[in-house]
Amino acid sequence: MFNKVLIANRGEVALRIIRACKELGIKTVAIYSEADARSLYVKKADESYLIPGDPIRAYLDYVRIVDLAKSVGADAIHPGYGFLAENAEFARYCQKMGITFIGPKPEHIETFGDKVKAKKVMQELGIPTVPGVTEPLRDYRDALHYARQIGFPVILKSAYGGGGRGMRVVKSEEELPGLFESAYREAETFFGKGDLFIEKYLDNPKHIEVQILADKYGNVVHLGERDCSVQRKHQKIIEVTPCPVLPKEIRNKMLGLSVRAMMQMGYENAGTLEFLVDLRTGEFYFIEMNTRLQVEHTITEMVTGVDIVQQMIRIAAGEPLPFTQNEITFRGYALEFRINAEDPKRNFAPSPGKITAYYSPGGPGVRMDAGVYKDFVIPPYYDSMIAKLSVWAMSWESLLARARRAIDEFIIRGVPTNIPLHREIIRDPDFISGYFGIRFLEEKLPTYDFEVEDLLDPEDLALAVAAAIAGYYGL
Amino acid sequence: MFNKVLIANRGEVALRIIRACKELGIKTVAIYSEADARSLYVKKADESYLIPGDPIRAYLDYVRIVDLAKSVGADAIHPGYGFLAENAEFARYCQKMGITFIGPKPEHIETFGDKVKAKKVMQELGIPTVPGVTEPLRDYRDALHYARQIGFPVILKSAYGGGGRGMRVVKSEEELPGLFESAYREAETFFGKGDLFIEKYLDNPKHIEVQILADKYGNVVHLGERDCSVQRKHQKIIEVTPCPVLPKEIRNKMLGLSVRAMMQMGYENAGTLEFLVDLRTGEFYFIEMNTRLQVEHTITEMVTGVDIVQQMIRIAAGEPLPFTQNEITFRGYALEFRINAEDPKRNFAPSPGKITAYYSPGGPGVRMDAGVYKDFVIPPYYDSMIAKLSVWAMSWESLLARARRAIDEFIIRGVPTNIPLHREIIRDPDFISGYFGIRFLEEKLPTYDFEVEDLLDPEDLALAVAAAIAGYYGL
Repeated sequence: MFNKVLIANRGEVALRIIRACKELGIKTVAIYSEADARSLYVKKADESYLIPGDPIRAYLDYVRIVDLAKSVGADAIHPGYGFLAENAEFARYCQKMGITFIGPKPEHIETFGDKVKAKKVMQELGIPTVPGVTEPLRDYRDALHYARQIGFPVILKSAYGGGGRGMRVVKSEEELPGLFESAYREAETFFGKGDLFIEKYLDNPKHIEVQILADKYGNVVHLGERDCSVQRKHQKIIEVTPCPVLPKEIRNKMLGLSVRAMMQMGYENAGTLEFLVDLRTGEFYFIEMNTRLQVEHTITEMVTGVDIVQQMIRIAAGEPLPFTQNEITFRGYALEFRINAEDPKRNFAPSPGKITAYYSPGGPGVRMDAGVYKDFVIPPYYDSMIAKLSVWAMSWESLLARARRAIDEFIIRGVPTNIPLHREIIRDPDFISGYFGIRFLEEKLPTYDFEVEDLLDPEDLALAVAAAIAGYYGL
Repeated sequence: MFNKVLIANRGEVALRIIRACKELGIKTVAIYSEADARSLYVKKADESYLIPGDPIRAYLDYVRIVDLAKSVGADAIHPGYGFLAENAEFARYCQKMGITFIGPKPEHIETFGDKVKAKKVMQELGIPTVPGVTEPLRDYRDALHYARQIGFPVILKSAYGGGGRGMRVVKSEEELPGLFESAYREAETFFGKGDLFIEKYLDNPKHIEVQILADKYGNVVHLGERDCSVQRKHQKIIEVTPCPVLPKEIRNKMLGLSVRAMMQMGYENAGTLEFLVDLRTGEFYFIEMNTRLQVEHTITEMVTGVDIVQQMIRIAAGEPLPFTQNEITFRGYALEFRINAEDPKRNFAPSPGKITAYYSPGGPGVRMDAGVYKDFVIPPYYDSMIAKLSVWAMSWESLLARARRAIDEFIIRGVPTNIPLHREIIRDPDFISGYFGIRFLEEKLPTYDFEVEDLLDPEDLALAVAAAIAGYYGL
């Protein structure tokens, strides 16, 4: 096992890794920018080193980071997520300098970093990807030819543009000639060239991902799936596990194919395969793979009892997986709220600043992973996520009740956060039904109400309550 | 289901019950003394009412409390633990006034409130109790007669005194005449009368308790056992589940007998049977039963996934248990640290006062149940327990590592707490071994070191770290 691990990250994930190391008896080294000097993780690490200069470059300058690791006697680096986590060059440089990179092999990071290559590799391994043609169509007859192969509905997309221009959903053969024509003209008008691609159209699919753990000896297991369909501008907001409405056969097939593919390619350490799932047809399509720890790993840990970060470290240190697939048990449901310092009333603009009050939820089934505290000043340079509230319960229904209770308990003052958004989502009947797709939040956002929450300071509130009811016994 | 529940308690347990009610969609009514006006639970309840006057009587004056419940439209009362929780008259008064008491039948509260009666009832139900004679012995021959029945070692105890005076542990027949003589004389000297009792001597047994849930329809289940041997002056300090060293046969027998006894007597709601267990002989002996929620219920919730407080409410509302014994699964190990405002360096004297800093632990497997927050002033009138830190992990070894990590994260400043004691216990080889009995803490306390923990304010610390290592890049 390692003696000392350097954490090439910041905030709550740095703290998460420190916790795993402490439990494994490994010393920890944190790095921090001047902006992060008062962060919780800086205080919790055994050693913390300031990387002066640019506040973002502090976490990206890998030559300097590896140099520091060497000089303080660290034998491994955990990259967390973001920053250097999916940088194959960094992983290679660690190797070269004799430091263990806690993550997959550099070549796998590289493969999955290239989305086109990743799709091809996965197709070869028998994993379905979104059917389509990457060459421009010649005419509508060409489009019809492929549409028949792919199956309706299909989507025509401009080869050069975006933002919905030159884009048409085609539901039947009859519609195709007319829609091809209009899409072509629109693309020509907006982008100068009318070239169109064709792809299978997925109407509001689910975004579902599979958590993988693989050791250096060919043992691969899955830890179930996570439903990450609640997104805003491709950013996950709430994740749940298991998906409450995924039919068992689809689930088993997706998990089985994922494990087999990872085995065949000799993948190592933690990874997540992301899929789009069409619940109407039961089809699923690989979209990308993240070769790192995910933000939402917490909910999988709650349901399986497996400590994913500890397993990553153990795998990197050469330990075999301590369990087979059959020994992993799944209990209940879990949900993560990503708490972001963003203002729901200002179109979710980042809202750095000083936290003047901070009361986090507790009690049964509640897990807090926070990087902040009262009087902490959120720096403006980084991702707006400041805390994660994860909730577990035995059933989907009790999970919803508990999640509602827990998010209602959460009080952060001084900076606006997306907590009011979470309170709306968790009460949304379409969320409660489980049948939410990736368009769910985009469609629902305009209907939500983010009024100022009149949460007074606790002292004020208690006094107000006391005053209001003092008359009860005639005082 | 109830519409509104009044909580006849305070602090963290009041908050625990509020959380359960919120998840069940039940409105909550809190009561509070003037001293508790700024407590967290007062803010979290839907309605909160000041009970003016004596700060302790506020939670004991049940006529007034039931009157309040009636006037605000509450249909049930949860008593928590302590205060009115085991007051049969209160339970009867609730019944009489048409308010549901969330707990067992009054007659069962009464039976188990009388320790001699309880022992007799349990004996009749086939549960072993500590063998002994409650009549004074005539002479050493009489003692020998009973000692042979009971089996050595036995203990001679003064009928009138305590504090170890007139008390002798007798290991063999040969020792008996001499020890009887000296015990008798000592008792005579100290208490005026030499009368002695005889009882089976248990050398540092384990204190193990069985959690029971029973509905109104004769369904009874156990939720496993808890090892509560770590005690100081009969106060539990750390509890674990399951007991890491209890042989399976003993465990199954204890659990089975407990369930059967509760079925036979028609027990209802939650209850806990407490036993002393002699690991050398494999014998266990009932000592008492608590007819209420226990402080340490949290660890059972973590291992079984069952929400005990919700179940209590559901049972009281007439719902049948939603699971059979076979459907309850046990996963991993859990441990509770009771965080008390007590000064380990002043013989654990209560230490009320203002909390000037409060950072609670988080991350995987950590559950917080706290009644306090930064700037809260702990009132001097009540039990010194201010928070509970519960930790779960898959194995005993990983539980110990995680518990150590979590208790090390916990920072409370402004008032001394017993956190330094927990940090010693969790590192004690005899605790780690699992073979700790009820004398463990008493024996170990003098060897522990409660030095001032030089935990600076986080701001100071970060600046100190920054200053100390600013030289790294030649700044």
